[in-house]
Amino acid sequence: MNLAVSVKKALAIPPSITLLAELVARELAQVNELILSRTGSEVTLIPEVANHLISSGGKRLRPMLTLAMAILNGYRGDAHVKLAASVEFMHTATLLHDDVVDESDLRRGRKTARIVWGNQASVLVGDFLLGQAFRMMVEAGFMDALDILSSAAAVIAEGEVMQLATAKNLATDEKAYLAVTAAKTAELFAAACEVGPAIAGGGHAERSACRAFGMALGQAFQLIDDALDYGGKADEIGKNVGDDFREGKITLPVVIAVARGDAEERAFWHRVMEGGDQHDGDLERAIAILRRHGAIEATTARAACFAEEAHRALSIYPDGEMHRALAQAVDFAVERNR
Amino acid sequence: MNLAVSVKKALAIPPSITLLAELVARELAQVNELILSRTGSEVTLIPEVANHLISSGGKRLRPMLTLAMAILNGYRGDAHVKLAASVEFMHTATLLHDDVVDESDLRRGRKTARIVWGNQASVLVGDFLLGQAFRMMVEAGFMDALDILSSAAAVIAEGEVMQLATAKNLATDEKAYLAVTAAKTAELFAAACEVGPAIAGGGHAERSACRAFGMALGQAFQLIDDALDYGGKADEIGKNVGDDFREGKITLPVVIAVARGDAEERAFWHRVMEGGDQHDGDLERAIAILRRHGAIEATTARAACFAEEAHRALSIYPDGEMHRALAQAVDFAVERNR
Repeated sequence: MNLAVSVKKALAIPPSITLLAELVARELAQVNELILSRTGSEVTLIPEVANHLISSGGKRLRPMLTLAMAILNGYRGDAHVKLAASVEFMHTATLLHDDVVDESDLRRGRKTARIVWGNQASVLVGDFLLGQAFRMMVEAGFMDALDILSSAAAVIAEGEVMQLATAKNLATDEKAYLAVTAAKTAELFAAACEVGPAIAGGGHAERSACRAFGMALGQAFQLIDDALDYGGKADEIGKNVGDDFREGKITLPVVIAVARGDAEERAFWHRVMEGGDQHDGDLERAIAILRRHGAIEATTARAACFAEEAHRALSIYPDGEMHRALAQAVDFAVERNR
Repeated sequence: MNLAVSVKKALAIPPSITLLAELVARELAQVNELILSRTGSEVTLIPEVANHLISSGGKRLRPMLTLAMAILNGYRGDAHVKLAASVEFMHTATLLHDDVVDESDLRRGRKTARIVWGNQASVLVGDFLLGQAFRMMVEAGFMDALDILSSAAAVIAEGEVMQLATAKNLATDEKAYLAVTAAKTAELFAAACEVGPAIAGGGHAERSACRAFGMALGQAFQLIDDALDYGGKADEIGKNVGDDFREGKITLPVVIAVARGDAEERAFWHRVMEGGDQHDGDLERAIAILRRHGAIEATTARAACFAEEAHRALSIYPDGEMHRALAQAVDFAVERNR
């Protein structure tokens, strides 16, 4: 319990994933140790860059899911710790490369690695972490887990490339947008979850259920992120609002507003998103348009449907503490949008 | 034979790896088919970017080594084809990321992918190819091969990061420089070779020998590349000369010249390499300094020692056609420096 409290403090875990964090606290502490040791290198730039991001207060949601799903499926070994660390490394590598691709200056309120150490170090340390991730997967020794996670690595990159094509294209519809988020975000949640039953000797039903849970949770998570980027449900605009807007990244709120808007609004979106021509007051105007069309609410509602799907996927498992903890994690993902 | 001839034509294989190319022609054709199918994606940007580089006349030396070493060790299955394609994908991913890191405009005489499609696509398609590489390794089904190649992926990235630190540092000595090339270049040759005996059921002796062969060949290959970048042994300067110089990348010829030079020369190297302050005539002056100190010859001599090591490593295998083909490949790597 003390361990859980300290982990909670160190990682700033929001209240509603408390139960999940408590139930996997012992294993998560091992994951954190493993992460620390596997970012180690005589090349001192590597741990510097890697730890800048890894210790910047991420929630460790993805590795927690791997641990939780292994436990939910009755796994008794210790390979889930290595696989959970692999999942976090894959996530971190993606973030490092994303920041280079998006030319981002801030992440989690801190300067991005590419601002502190340059694009070069960000690309290469990302590659290093991906290599270390695969090394740990090999050590874990489950061919099925390797299959799931290596496929996920390719799909995630494919999703990121898809996003390059759709990001500034106002013709992107909801279906096309959700295909991008399924690949670039939800696939890692799905893979992180499917690994659990795969190493626990679960059958097709368990693997499908856990994968579907992760996929739906990942989609809900991404859509709420999209909504929060325009201030979520709050009336006043928070501080990290507008990143997607400034990068001209078309997300579901904009897709919905464009579909519901008139010619004048379309001209506005065309100028600011496709053309990248933004002035003072444009973000406020964008938010006003999104509100007028209920685009934030519609995005949140879509996220709620995915959350519902996630809950349904869990229903093949009998009620129990881990089951409840995972259900709470889903609610947490959606409730962030306050 | 016809197949070998057409493969040779398509890939512009230089004369001295002809025997190697002939002996693995059937499998290499399968590797090329696999490469083509695994760069396929509904996201059309992916095959565009990947094939731009993959079909730009690379020698396929690394995948040929995997095939050859598997055959030399008596392997009778078909997993070597997937592993060879994985090796080529790892190599291609590294090149895509390298060009972003080095801000290179040309590779193999063509515009780099980052110039045609941007840094973003180069980073992400590299990630995709790395994911596909691991997918094929998993399909090949040998945990030992996965172990060798995933470790190599981490070591290569580590070598690239090391290079960031040493590239513009005139205090780099030969030992430090060779540690960088061992990691960033020779490790993939070593891994590509070790995979052969690993899947053929070879023992420790065979794995060590093949790995040592690849490591020495890779080092020789890199040093000759370094020498060629300053015109090699030729009196007149060829056309792709000076890339390393312009990028301020300190390679063995410069390390040697700095060690043998006087204060005035050190000031010159400091200005052009560490300071990046280069003017007309500086490349010619650099080459003149390198010649005066015999730095190109010393680099070539070091490469010849590595070639000798590679030959020695092969000596545990009885004489035969594949043995001869691999020995010729070593000579080819060094003889390029004409």
